[in-house]
Amino acid sequence: MTETRWLNEVTWDDQGLVPVIAQDADTGDVLMFAWMNRDALARTVETGEAVYWSRSRRKIWHKGEESGHVQRVREIRLDCDGDVVLLKIEQEGGIACHTGRRSCFFTRLHDGAQWQAVDPVLKDPKDIYK
Amino acid sequence: MTETRWLNEVTWDDQGLVPVIAQDADTGDVLMFAWMNRDALARTVETGEAVYWSRSRRKIWHKGEESGHVQRVREIRLDCDGDVVLLKIEQEGGIACHTGRRSCFFTRLHDGAQWQAVDPVLKDPKDIYK
Repeated sequence: MTETRWLNEVTWDDQGLVPVIAQDADTGDVLMFAWMNRDALARTVETGEAVYWSRSRRKIWHKGEESGHVQRVREIRLDCDGDVVLLKIEQEGGIACHTGRRSCFFTRLHDGAQWQAVDPVLKDPKDIYK
Repeated sequence: MTETRWLNEVTWDDQGLVPVIAQDADTGDVLMFAWMNRDALARTVETGEAVYWSRSRRKIWHKGEESGHVQRVREIRLDCDGDVVLLKIEQEGGIACHTGRRSCFFTRLHDGAQWQAVDPVLKDPKDIYK
């Protein structure tokens, strides 16, 4: 039987989810933010690759299943309240974002007044999702 | 009149909130995760220091107001869906967590089976919150 006591120590929200931050294990760049349910977190540990819960599609989502941009998990951390997970990952292909950029956080607030996309598209999404 | 169009470009959830990741601007360490409402994000930009919305206390919370551990904001980023904010900050006192640790993410999953606190307490919380 798989030991799952550690899963009970996560504080799941009223929808059974926990927010997850995916951070590049080497550079420290924050690449992505997503959600997991209990099953997704268990599968993440079992497979060693990030598995999320898609709130829009309402299903388990093995990151990279279409794009090939899987996230190999080097470390899993939990915050002081037990209700946020931090993954330290190696990003296959160097692209985490569905826009073809390295990180989803490519938009910066300029002069406290205007959002600007500041990071480059590394690969055309049309060539990622064929 | 303050220009607030940029605030409308944030995708607020059904409670009017957005999740926020606070990252050390120099080291890249993820220090904290919290929430902001529209007012908190506006005040963060106005003051240059992180202002959050406390979901448990249901009020605006200027981080460091009690502890002195304010977060000076160097950069604000938004993710590709516009529904997650990333702050790059300088952490006053080097302590973001209410436990007296540098980061709230001091608990690591060991052998895929056990959560372990792995980072040291830098200051006794009794000496922080007097």
